[in-house]
Amino acid sequence: MAIRIGILGYGNLARGIEAGITHNKDMELVAVFTRRDPSSLQIKTAGVPVVSVNDILSYKDKIDVLMLCGGSATDLPKQTVEYAKDFNVIDSFDTHAKIPEHFAAVNEQALKNQKVAIISCGWDPGMFSINRLYSNCVLPDGKDYTFWGKGVSQGHSDAIRRVPGVKNGKQYTVPVESALEAVRSGSNPELTTRQKHTRVCYVVPEEGADKDLITKTIKEMPNYFSDYDTTVNFITEEEFARDHSGMAHGGFVFRTGTTGWNNENKHVIEYSLKLDSNPEFTASVLLAYARAASRLAAKSDFGCKTVFDIAPALLSPLSGEEIRAHLL
Amino acid sequence: MAIRIGILGYGNLARGIEAGITHNKDMELVAVFTRRDPSSLQIKTAGVPVVSVNDILSYKDKIDVLMLCGGSATDLPKQTVEYAKDFNVIDSFDTHAKIPEHFAAVNEQALKNQKVAIISCGWDPGMFSINRLYSNCVLPDGKDYTFWGKGVSQGHSDAIRRVPGVKNGKQYTVPVESALEAVRSGSNPELTTRQKHTRVCYVVPEEGADKDLITKTIKEMPNYFSDYDTTVNFITEEEFARDHSGMAHGGFVFRTGTTGWNNENKHVIEYSLKLDSNPEFTASVLLAYARAASRLAAKSDFGCKTVFDIAPALLSPLSGEEIRAHLL
Repeated sequence: MAIRIGILGYGNLARGIEAGITHNKDMELVAVFTRRDPSSLQIKTAGVPVVSVNDILSYKDKIDVLMLCGGSATDLPKQTVEYAKDFNVIDSFDTHAKIPEHFAAVNEQALKNQKVAIISCGWDPGMFSINRLYSNCVLPDGKDYTFWGKGVSQGHSDAIRRVPGVKNGKQYTVPVESALEAVRSGSNPELTTRQKHTRVCYVVPEEGADKDLITKTIKEMPNYFSDYDTTVNFITEEEFARDHSGMAHGGFVFRTGTTGWNNENKHVIEYSLKLDSNPEFTASVLLAYARAASRLAAKSDFGCKTVFDIAPALLSPLSGEEIRAHLL
Repeated sequence: MAIRIGILGYGNLARGIEAGITHNKDMELVAVFTRRDPSSLQIKTAGVPVVSVNDILSYKDKIDVLMLCGGSATDLPKQTVEYAKDFNVIDSFDTHAKIPEHFAAVNEQALKNQKVAIISCGWDPGMFSINRLYSNCVLPDGKDYTFWGKGVSQGHSDAIRRVPGVKNGKQYTVPVESALEAVRSGSNPELTTRQKHTRVCYVVPEEGADKDLITKTIKEMPNYFSDYDTTVNFITEEEFARDHSGMAHGGFVFRTGTTGWNNENKHVIEYSLKLDSNPEFTASVLLAYARAASRLAAKSDFGCKTVFDIAPALLSPLSGEEIRAHLL
């Protein structure tokens, strides 16, 4: 029987999940839930209803896993706790500093109601975290490096757009190639913030705006840009629409470490992602974990989990025999 | 209390485990077991006994996990089954085609005697397998590529040394850079055996040997070399000792796949290892799984397992709270 999926929300991530379900033959989309007027929302999957979130409880027994597609700032801290009462849920909560309290609140609710909740799923947190953990366990004496990009930072793009005189803007985080090479060489470099990433901005100025002032304001913005080498490029609205509507992203996780009686042998572990679509890849990870959630629920292994708590085999549609024969 | 480790055998892998224990503060070496006369074996860890394998059962209650360091061809198929009767065991069984029957035999014994056995641990099978599995689950529509090297192939080195006129020899498997780049680009190339790896041989000839004949014999050897572009270099015994005693290895695991309604978005997942010491890195992986084995045994989760069945958190000396706070 197919794993019955519900989606709450219909932004980029939710649309990625909708498309992702078509790549997973053991899953089916049951409904998309929205806080808006359902009649205002047109989804892509034929025959699947759009339902007001007010009616979500009538789907309590029709859905195996509910995918929560809200934002980490205000939606998920409430939604995941709320919906873990009635559904097995997956979220992509990515406010690192608040994961412990989010975990505790969700865990309490999920245990009390015998549900499975998998939080902080995606690629960072998610696939990158798994690689950090495995590599740390295998090389206890070593050093971690994470690089992001090339890809769009939503927070930095928002910051640009708040600068006076900016009509539209997008910011790319770009890893510094020489820093990547230094890490890859196993030389264990100490890298400052500035040495790891550069920030490249594309700005559509308002008519008559002072471009030098915009550049200066962006480059000197504390927290966001002042610690980085930042480039500001001015482009037209047409160029913006043509060249900067993509959602590519990616990054690198390294651990370099030593073994031997005198740390005489060096090792480099590198994991990297190069993604055409950040939301579709994130959605694909969430769906693999939805499969795990449905299995954990089936064996009454309830509570809040992260990617660290879930054996890889639980993500696969194949049997233990099959994965041992073909992937081990 | 420390995890008490026993080691069976004292070859390269066993010596890597002995050194690796010093990098894991929660582990201690209890004994090294040998089929030889124990007095003939000098180990590096002060105060730890070398014990005849005939006396291993007297250590039944003194060891939490026994690391089996025999070879896959003849040792492990017998040893893992035999010692899973009295010990939690880890092996690095790597004869891919025989994993299903090895798993079945070990599982039966381990379940019957309430022991944990983790088989086929290391980096391939092991870390590479995990990456293949995760990537397959996240990108159901895609293609896998595994490259090995640059590193020594023991089997191919043995094959060289059997050629008449060869005094000593070593063979390096080298991934073809242009093939790596083609995969990395996401172009999903179809690659023949010849296009993926080259084989580079270093041979010390016997005095007066016919070098042309040796070269021809190696290059035309079926299974081992005839499907590859092979280079044969002749060197002196001194050069051999100076330049070819290392045990570096490594490799790459890729999955390239697509998402979206029309497979319009491409993604590339790459995992790679660059290892100064193949046996020491393999040993480090085995030790991380020894930690998992001791935990599985403590919660009575018995039977045969592979890396697919074990949640990443079980490998870490840190608590769930700590890994969520620092690595997620």
